[in-house]
Amino acid sequence: MKNRNLTMMTDFYELTMSQAYFKAGKKDEEAVFDAFFRKNPLDGGYAVMGGVDRIIKLVKEAHFNDEDIEYLRSTGQFTEDFLAYLRDFKFTGSIYAVPDGTPVFANEPILTVKAPIIEAQILETILLSYLNAGIIHTTAARRVVEAAEGIGIMEFGARRALGPDAAVEASKCAMIAGCVGTSNVLAGQEYGFPVLGTMAHSLVTEADSEYEAFLNYAKAYPNNCILLVDTYDVLKSGVPNAIRVAKEFLIPNGYQLKGIRIDSGDLAYLSKEAKKMLIEAGLPDTKVCLSNGLNERTIKALKEQGAVIDSIGLGDNIVLPDKARVGCVYKNVAINHNGEFVSRIKVSNEAAKAITPGYKKVYRFYDKTTGYALGDVIALHEENIPRNKFTLIDPNNEANRLTIKNYNIRELQEAIFVDGKLVWEDPTIAEKQAYCNKEMATLYPEVKRIDNPHGYYVDLTRKLLELKKELIRQAKEQTVTYDIDTKLEKRL
Amino acid sequence: MKNRNLTMMTDFYELTMSQAYFKAGKKDEEAVFDAFFRKNPLDGGYAVMGGVDRIIKLVKEAHFNDEDIEYLRSTGQFTEDFLAYLRDFKFTGSIYAVPDGTPVFANEPILTVKAPIIEAQILETILLSYLNAGIIHTTAARRVVEAAEGIGIMEFGARRALGPDAAVEASKCAMIAGCVGTSNVLAGQEYGFPVLGTMAHSLVTEADSEYEAFLNYAKAYPNNCILLVDTYDVLKSGVPNAIRVAKEFLIPNGYQLKGIRIDSGDLAYLSKEAKKMLIEAGLPDTKVCLSNGLNERTIKALKEQGAVIDSIGLGDNIVLPDKARVGCVYKNVAINHNGEFVSRIKVSNEAAKAITPGYKKVYRFYDKTTGYALGDVIALHEENIPRNKFTLIDPNNEANRLTIKNYNIRELQEAIFVDGKLVWEDPTIAEKQAYCNKEMATLYPEVKRIDNPHGYYVDLTRKLLELKKELIRQAKEQTVTYDIDTKLEKRL
Repeated sequence: MKNRNLTMMTDFYELTMSQAYFKAGKKDEEAVFDAFFRKNPLDGGYAVMGGVDRIIKLVKEAHFNDEDIEYLRSTGQFTEDFLAYLRDFKFTGSIYAVPDGTPVFANEPILTVKAPIIEAQILETILLSYLNAGIIHTTAARRVVEAAEGIGIMEFGARRALGPDAAVEASKCAMIAGCVGTSNVLAGQEYGFPVLGTMAHSLVTEADSEYEAFLNYAKAYPNNCILLVDTYDVLKSGVPNAIRVAKEFLIPNGYQLKGIRIDSGDLAYLSKEAKKMLIEAGLPDTKVCLSNGLNERTIKALKEQGAVIDSIGLGDNIVLPDKARVGCVYKNVAINHNGEFVSRIKVSNEAAKAITPGYKKVYRFYDKTTGYALGDVIALHEENIPRNKFTLIDPNNEANRLTIKNYNIRELQEAIFVDGKLVWEDPTIAEKQAYCNKEMATLYPEVKRIDNPHGYYVDLTRKLLELKKELIRQAKEQTVTYDIDTKLEKRL
Repeated sequence: MKNRNLTMMTDFYELTMSQAYFKAGKKDEEAVFDAFFRKNPLDGGYAVMGGVDRIIKLVKEAHFNDEDIEYLRSTGQFTEDFLAYLRDFKFTGSIYAVPDGTPVFANEPILTVKAPIIEAQILETILLSYLNAGIIHTTAARRVVEAAEGIGIMEFGARRALGPDAAVEASKCAMIAGCVGTSNVLAGQEYGFPVLGTMAHSLVTEADSEYEAFLNYAKAYPNNCILLVDTYDVLKSGVPNAIRVAKEFLIPNGYQLKGIRIDSGDLAYLSKEAKKMLIEAGLPDTKVCLSNGLNERTIKALKEQGAVIDSIGLGDNIVLPDKARVGCVYKNVAINHNGEFVSRIKVSNEAAKAITPGYKKVYRFYDKTTGYALGDVIALHEENIPRNKFTLIDPNNEANRLTIKNYNIRELQEAIFVDGKLVWEDPTIAEKQAYCNKEMATLYPEVKRIDNPHGYYVDLTRKLLELKKELIRQAKEQTVTYDIDTKLEKRL
């Protein structure tokens, strides 16, 4: 398989629509698209932004080469003038996005593209794919990091990822979210992450006995000897054999048994019993690592049951959580007509799918005293947000209002590209990790609660709320008019 | 990001274990590893094999280049002799696998690697990742194809996939499973699949009115005009506007309205009402395409409710189904000691995790008269299966037996690599699709039922069953011995 041009990772309709715009003389018409999701992933109270780095790379390199044009020509759907346009395609618009590692919430624009409509349209598919992946991995990883409360999480999920590309992306997101390392050698090589891991059951089953396997491993890694003790029986075989290797080989040669790993069975019970045996054997410093399909809930339960946990290996629930859908959408919210942005709305037959129209900004309010995030407000782009006193209005129930004072305010989206130029210096992964830690500390614990979290406020300014209601009203009226038109037609 | 060497997509412990084998003088020791999953994915009665093509490509190219060696050296965990071994690494073993598109079932080996243990170990991570991805996409797609009973399914999931690589793989698997096309242009380009799709809501919201949007689109694609009718209101606006464009522009110019697509609301009701309107308007040939997060269950329900469906657009549930975990594992089942395969087992503290040991083959029995698959049996490699009469024994309940006669028998795994040489000519995607259709027709409808499917028989030969029981017994005995050893030690 040759090197892929990822600009071609687009739904076919992006291109057919683009040609329709092109034919209608609208190729330079400027449009605004918002990306957002409708429900926080993983039934949580928050999500964590991810994928901006891949978006930057894609947009910088966006193009169609001769081979691509030839392929598109072969579909028979495109005319030469449009293909010539694509041959010269590059992104000339602006992209604003919430930086990787920021907590984000349902129904707020996390990325906004303001660009000639064809450019905005062609990028839709891959932007969404990058956002959906980046957000699910970062959020899932952060949820376990929060649950572990300081116990190091090692990302071990490569084999469960839907392919190598997804595995490396998940490792990267896990690191941003605060994991301490990854088992994925390719991710380690690409990003310089700590790569971790010692042995699998096959090392034990290969040998004639568990003891022999442990001894050979200890000889190969006397300095870093972590033994997997559950191949046959943790307490009757694995831990005793580990202790024997420590006493017969490691300690006499000036080394220590660094750790044991338990990967099956009742981890709470086994970890406590194993620790007792290690202490009795005079090995109190030997670490206990737990793994086996853990997630935020099982980690919490293990801690509550007093399990002994020095570190956690966890993969499945970062690379492919049970409800892995973020469901980011990308909606046309405004069109520039002669220098003025005209707001657009989609109503549809499902009321909940009505989008928030308009070219917008998102602000986050922080309590000046505690630093906690109080809520976000979505405003029209040109609106000014008062710096002293503000009333948040719940768009789904206008009677729900909260007036706040004594706040700091911050715009959530950063300019990434302006008029085609990359203006954002993307932080390193380590910087993103530190930023994510700092950002997550601004959320109330109630919002971060694993189950039934408190809803975080994402409200609209009064002006935007009125605009949305007005546009919904207009759209509904429009439908009636058309209905009458058709009835007239039928009579013809 | 440079071109990735996917051989590096391996868990770090594969390499540390490999060095331990190397140091213990076992680099040429031949081992057998089986890949299998423990539960059919998606709560189904079957899975469909996928990912073999990517495995072939990876294994053919498996290597470590200078840059990789330099990186591995920098981790400080490897010695020069082992790094030199890796620098010369290539796969010299044999791989047997069930071909893409074959129905497969829990607990049977779907891929077997017989190779020097280090080679088998290093490939583990990426083989599993490819199998997990290939099987979930192919199975998920086949489930909707079965539910649609002949209605064409278009794979539309690119934006929901966890990245472009995962999206292209899902498109490919969807085609093998019987989908009629994909929206993913990159997949179309790479594999020559039909690329499909017409318009999104943004085409409608961009314009000043739905009618204008439809008209512009019809002008650009008079021959292939499929209009998305749910931006404002399907029955009051979308369908009437589509009819108007058909009557005012398409028909007068010698064209037809090819179709409408409904992407929200109650699809059963809306599709029936829309069809009535189309017929009333004299457009009985206009096709109705439905989309919006459909899956096998909603397709079945729509059909039961008499929905009008000429084609289905469906993506999420192929690229990222709700329970996307196949959970393939890869277990050491035998070691070659002096030319004899010694069987290995992992017992662990969870009884269900005990694996089936031994170097094995898998056979499928077909009813000679009906062609239906009667069950699979796993045998030791050297065993002969009688051709006339055979008793299947349920390994979980030996009292459950089924004696069968009048069968054809087929070995499920094909030789892919033998002694490092690729011996399998991988079929084209179209051939795989035809093969998958043929194969799926051999399953009883009860096995393919969406909910509470009948369990398909996957049994062990009596010889293999006895071996498994004996090895479990031995492993349990072994643990007691070690326990006594340790108690003795503690007294010292």
